[in-house]
Amino acid sequence: MQRAGIAGATGYTGYELIALIHRHPELEVGWLTSERSAGKRFNQIFSTPWDYPLIPLADAYLRTDEVDVVFLCLPHAESMEAVKRFYGAGVRVIDLSADFRLKDVDVYKRWYGVEHSAPELCAEARYGLCELFRSQLGGARLIASPGCYPTSVNLGLYPLAKAGWLGERVIVDSKSGISGAGRKTTLPFQFVEANENITAYSVGHRHRHIAEMEQVLGAANGEGRDHRFLFTPHLLPVNRGILSTMYVEAPAGVTEERIRELYEENYEGEPFIHLLPAGEQASLAHTVGTNRCAIAITAADPMLPEGGEFVISASIDNLIKGGSGQAVQSYNIAVGLDETAGLE
Amino acid sequence: MQRAGIAGATGYTGYELIALIHRHPELEVGWLTSERSAGKRFNQIFSTPWDYPLIPLADAYLRTDEVDVVFLCLPHAESMEAVKRFYGAGVRVIDLSADFRLKDVDVYKRWYGVEHSAPELCAEARYGLCELFRSQLGGARLIASPGCYPTSVNLGLYPLAKAGWLGERVIVDSKSGISGAGRKTTLPFQFVEANENITAYSVGHRHRHIAEMEQVLGAANGEGRDHRFLFTPHLLPVNRGILSTMYVEAPAGVTEERIRELYEENYEGEPFIHLLPAGEQASLAHTVGTNRCAIAITAADPMLPEGGEFVISASIDNLIKGGSGQAVQSYNIAVGLDETAGLE
Amino acid sequence: MQRAGIAGATGYTGYELIALIHRHPELEVGWLTSERSAGKRFNQIFSTPWDYPLIPLADAYLRTDEVDVVFLCLPHAESMEAVKRFYGAGVRVIDLSADFRLKDVDVYKRWYGVEHSAPELCAEARYGLCELFRSQLGGARLIASPGCYPTSVNLGLYPLAKAGWLGERVIVDSKSGISGAGRKTTLPFQFVEANENITAYSVGHRHRHIAEMEQVLGAANGEGRDHRFLFTPHLLPVNRGILSTMYVEAPAGVTEERIRELYEENYEGEPFIHLLPAGEQASLAHTVGTNRCAIAITAADPMLPEGGEFVISASIDNLIKGGSGQAVQSYNIAVGLDETAGLE
Amino acid sequence: MQRAGIAGATGYTGYELIALIHRHPELEVGWLTSERSAGKRFNQIFSTPWDYPLIPLADAYLRTDEVDVVFLCLPHAESMEAVKRFYGAGVRVIDLSADFRLKDVDVYKRWYGVEHSAPELCAEARYGLCELFRSQLGGARLIASPGCYPTSVNLGLYPLAKAGWLGERVIVDSKSGISGAGRKTTLPFQFVEANENITAYSVGHRHRHIAEMEQVLGAANGEGRDHRFLFTPHLLPVNRGILSTMYVEAPAGVTEERIRELYEENYEGEPFIHLLPAGEQASLAHTVGTNRCAIAITAADPMLPEGGEFVISASIDNLIKGGSGQAVQSYNIAVGLDETAGLE
Repeated sequence: MQRAGIAGATGYTGYELIALIHRHPELEVGWLTSERSAGKRFNQIFSTPWDYPLIPLADAYLRTDEVDVVFLCLPHAESMEAVKRFYGAGVRVIDLSADFRLKDVDVYKRWYGVEHSAPELCAEARYGLCELFRSQLGGARLIASPGCYPTSVNLGLYPLAKAGWLGERVIVDSKSGISGAGRKTTLPFQFVEANENITAYSVGHRHRHIAEMEQVLGAANGEGRDHRFLFTPHLLPVNRGILSTMYVEAPAGVTEERIRELYEENYEGEPFIHLLPAGEQASLAHTVGTNRCAIAITAADPMLPEGGEFVISASIDNLIKGGSGQAVQSYNIAVGLDETAGLE
Repeated sequence: MQRAGIAGATGYTGYELIALIHRHPELEVGWLTSERSAGKRFNQIFSTPWDYPLIPLADAYLRTDEVDVVFLCLPHAESMEAVKRFYGAGVRVIDLSADFRLKDVDVYKRWYGVEHSAPELCAEARYGLCELFRSQLGGARLIASPGCYPTSVNLGLYPLAKAGWLGERVIVDSKSGISGAGRKTTLPFQFVEANENITAYSVGHRHRHIAEMEQVLGAANGEGRDHRFLFTPHLLPVNRGILSTMYVEAPAGVTEERIRELYEENYEGEPFIHLLPAGEQASLAHTVGTNRCAIAITAADPMLPEGGEFVISASIDNLIKGGSGQAVQSYNIAVGLDETAGLE
Repeated sequence: MQRAGIAGATGYTGYELIALIHRHPELEVGWLTSERSAGKRFNQIFSTPWDYPLIPLADAYLRTDEVDVVFLCLPHAESMEAVKRFYGAGVRVIDLSADFRLKDVDVYKRWYGVEHSAPELCAEARYGLCELFRSQLGGARLIASPGCYPTSVNLGLYPLAKAGWLGERVIVDSKSGISGAGRKTTLPFQFVEANENITAYSVGHRHRHIAEMEQVLGAANGEGRDHRFLFTPHLLPVNRGILSTMYVEAPAGVTEERIRELYEENYEGEPFIHLLPAGEQASLAHTVGTNRCAIAITAADPMLPEGGEFVISASIDNLIKGGSGQAVQSYNIAVGLDETAGLE
Repeated sequence: MQRAGIAGATGYTGYELIALIHRHPELEVGWLTSERSAGKRFNQIFSTPWDYPLIPLADAYLRTDEVDVVFLCLPHAESMEAVKRFYGAGVRVIDLSADFRLKDVDVYKRWYGVEHSAPELCAEARYGLCELFRSQLGGARLIASPGCYPTSVNLGLYPLAKAGWLGERVIVDSKSGISGAGRKTTLPFQFVEANENITAYSVGHRHRHIAEMEQVLGAANGEGRDHRFLFTPHLLPVNRGILSTMYVEAPAGVTEERIRELYEENYEGEPFIHLLPAGEQASLAHTVGTNRCAIAITAADPMLPEGGEFVISASIDNLIKGGSGQAVQSYNIAVGLDETAGLE
């Protein structure tokens, strides 16, 4: 058994990680940190019998020898320092923040408004989108786990982009469950405000997660193609799950069937990719509670199956495949375990 | 047209009042107050085109001549002072707080933990449960609008209590939509916490609203009978509505049919009481969006229709019949309008 | 008072119509028809005290003298015959089905798969999108009330289209509450299937409502421009409301501010259009329970306010502005009442 | 690995069983039956990649040698025949229907309206409420898995009843997620009907599950005491979970603390019982997604801690602890595995 420390354990991602670790045959919980709730116990924060003490991060820095891996569920910008400390102490780090996802620190600064304080580690970090970058994750000691929205978009469009078939203009209309906003007490996420409602936010080209789409899909076919992403996330009145409906253009003559074959080739044998048959659309029900990504491919116009326009929809559980599950998956790869351990 | 001032306009009750006033043939909006949002406009606080300025309560005290009636949607204890000011200035007052609901200021102090600062006005105030106290409301200049839970319970049990048929032990299991908690940003009312969940709170004999049940039902048959109320409210994952399921004992020989007749006699001609036929249970769908109270009566044991145990269920919209609608209804009576004006 | 007959009264649209008529100062309920529930009473079908008999349509044909207007909430193809009968008997008809919305019966046949049996009445019928075709509705005796999705899309894009600024490719990603599917008992609309879920259906160029978008927006600037609509509706886990997120291209140099001015000019004085200020996005909370359409305009890229790409979002209550409310609004115009009567 | 056949695999309980078996270290899926969907594949019925053929029950009778255990998720009355066939063929049977839960076939007939066709097997069957009847389950070859509501009630009240402290009158107000109604397409379970709603059904002494409460709690302290249960279930607008709020009387002098100690003694070491500390109420969040039962104990009146009235609340996931999870737990005990295998 290996022991996992979790920094920032009292958010939804932290809770989910602990649930996954409880099911994992080779992992067990080490220490948990929380700045706001240090001194309390985990079962005072969540409705659960799991009775763990919560310690401040500063204490965790002194207890690196008690854990084999640290999962960081800290806000971006704050995570950098923790990564340096734990990585420097020789502990394997899976960082669920945005701090080490972007290769270019200038891009990081542009989107996140913060100077990166550890650019040398950006090169070191591996991007933990397992299906696309598995070969880089074996033995990795610093993994930047992807954002929730980009996980759905990048898995949903990568085969097209890699084949050079993804048109310049990509429109992504995403709907996310409210746990994506974190365990915050702000008015728009109050039950009465969010329930029976839906609204867009950060429309067009404003949401930070676009950077991960540009980085992954732009480089997919080796030529650094530029795509123009219009990405509009919506607050969906459900607890968890993301559905991304994507409107893309493909070269004339490329049929829906051909694209489906392409995806089948790309994702053959992938345990967590669920390619849907023709005619079935992705839904949250396909993936919530699982580490899977469901992908549907549909020619926009049934009269024009080669007409160049396609609707690709992809769904994930934002807290599992878009968060803690993917983090565990990348950990499994890094240490050489069965990639699905604890994730079935 | 009469003009209504609303103090504390930026809660859910305030919003609902404004919506009702917009439909009311004889009322229009005067000033609106908000301590926290004074200086902003109403349509910056809610998703609505209603563009009203928000002023502090202190300013409203100087503008009593602009309004004919004031509806107070203020927290208990804070409302007392405002009642004194507006009532003293000769403005009709409908107080939606708990401050003037209880006749006995010692009972008030016991449940609310506050010394009452205007006991002389308690005698003056009329309890605005229109169906039961209509005769006291004509011309009233100070009306204490009832609490949401007690409205469902008192309307649901009054005929039994008045007939002396309500047993000593009364068990009320209530379920309330989350708007009942107000427009607060606290963790238990966050979407992810409340959605797909239900929990009891203030179980047994702990919730302040019991005082209104004891006051109304204890005095119902003129003999000041004591009932023991066990009242357990639950947080229901819906925006609005209260369902109270009540377990009561009646004297041997009293049948379900006899009780239904009793209710029909008591509530004959009431525009907002919806007595359900035998076999139908009350649901939120019967009342949400309306000023109605739906009431169902069922003998507990179909084999023992005279067996003495009954389940009475009553539903209301907590923001309308349990809040702003009832306040408007009592206003209509006070000023001699058609009681249903603006409430259909 | 005028009397309204409602054919197909036991669906959600029928229920909503009756609720609106109850609030309407000049309308009252005449007869109600239901094929499946004929012989029962309305309050046996819905949780309401409204106690009306339900008669078969065949009986209503014999009772045209009892009503001044008939609202038809019948399935398409079935509605044609009823329109002929009631219109032929001299009764004003507001048809909420799709049967008389499309001017071109070939287009009708292509999308609905049915030969039109009353093409002569198609020319007679007025399309009841009041804000855009008000001048054609005064005195109208046959009104085809628009579809729910097209109402949100056409109101949201008409000013752009009329100005000739709407690019060829229009992508509409719509989310609709489940009442849009009608009061059917089919598996995908069961609570457990739809709750905590979202899924697309009829993606791309498959949904019949596209025909209304093409008809209205194609003709908007008088030149019969063709737009390519990709329209993807989604089943949203809420009871009511539609949010349409629309991705459009405008000519270079056209700024967000200019577009907002254009909308303000077009919709000046409209009682039911709620243009949102810059920075605010449309939500269901803006419109559910009302006859309003809320519209938000946002330049896709904040760095490129003239960059040619815009996100327009529009929300309506599918059962009111997208159904019964709009039908009443067009009736009000037809008979010369205040357009907002019963709709505030 | 042992192989499990599942009869009636296309309901929610069947789905959940398959999910649990996938996580179980010693179980794998054998055949699945469905009368309605025989010939189709499991992934055509649910949004899942699990691709299993569905066969009719008649075929399963011929393939008993392929499985080690059969889980029956069939309707009551239909299940009897299947139990006889599989049990007769020597296969271990876990029956999730009501057919073998009641020891007295007259009681069965009274509540279920059906003559029992296999009374000899009723004596053979073990009641699979593991925490209470564990000692009877080792080696069991026919297990009747308890009903969902009785699981919450019996676990919540057993220690009281066993100590002889449970008063005669027991009032149980239960709230159940809609999956409890099964995967049916009937109007009350349609999304729009059930959402934002709550209603009671089978109030008082009408619901069949009362028989299991009477059987278990009546015999709990060895003297066959009679309790009068008023049991009112409610349809709660959530997918899954049951919360039972129970109002009970205990002898004078028995304090909340004493009752909590009693429960701690009774449930010491139980992996799936979560006794809540004083002041915390049970919620669905404590148990949904788990095989746990959370129990809270509260003196009704804080001024009268020995006053004899208590509110006990208990929550479970109706599909796991109240269905498939408990079935797997009893299987684990029967075959001598770790009781928590596959259930963590």
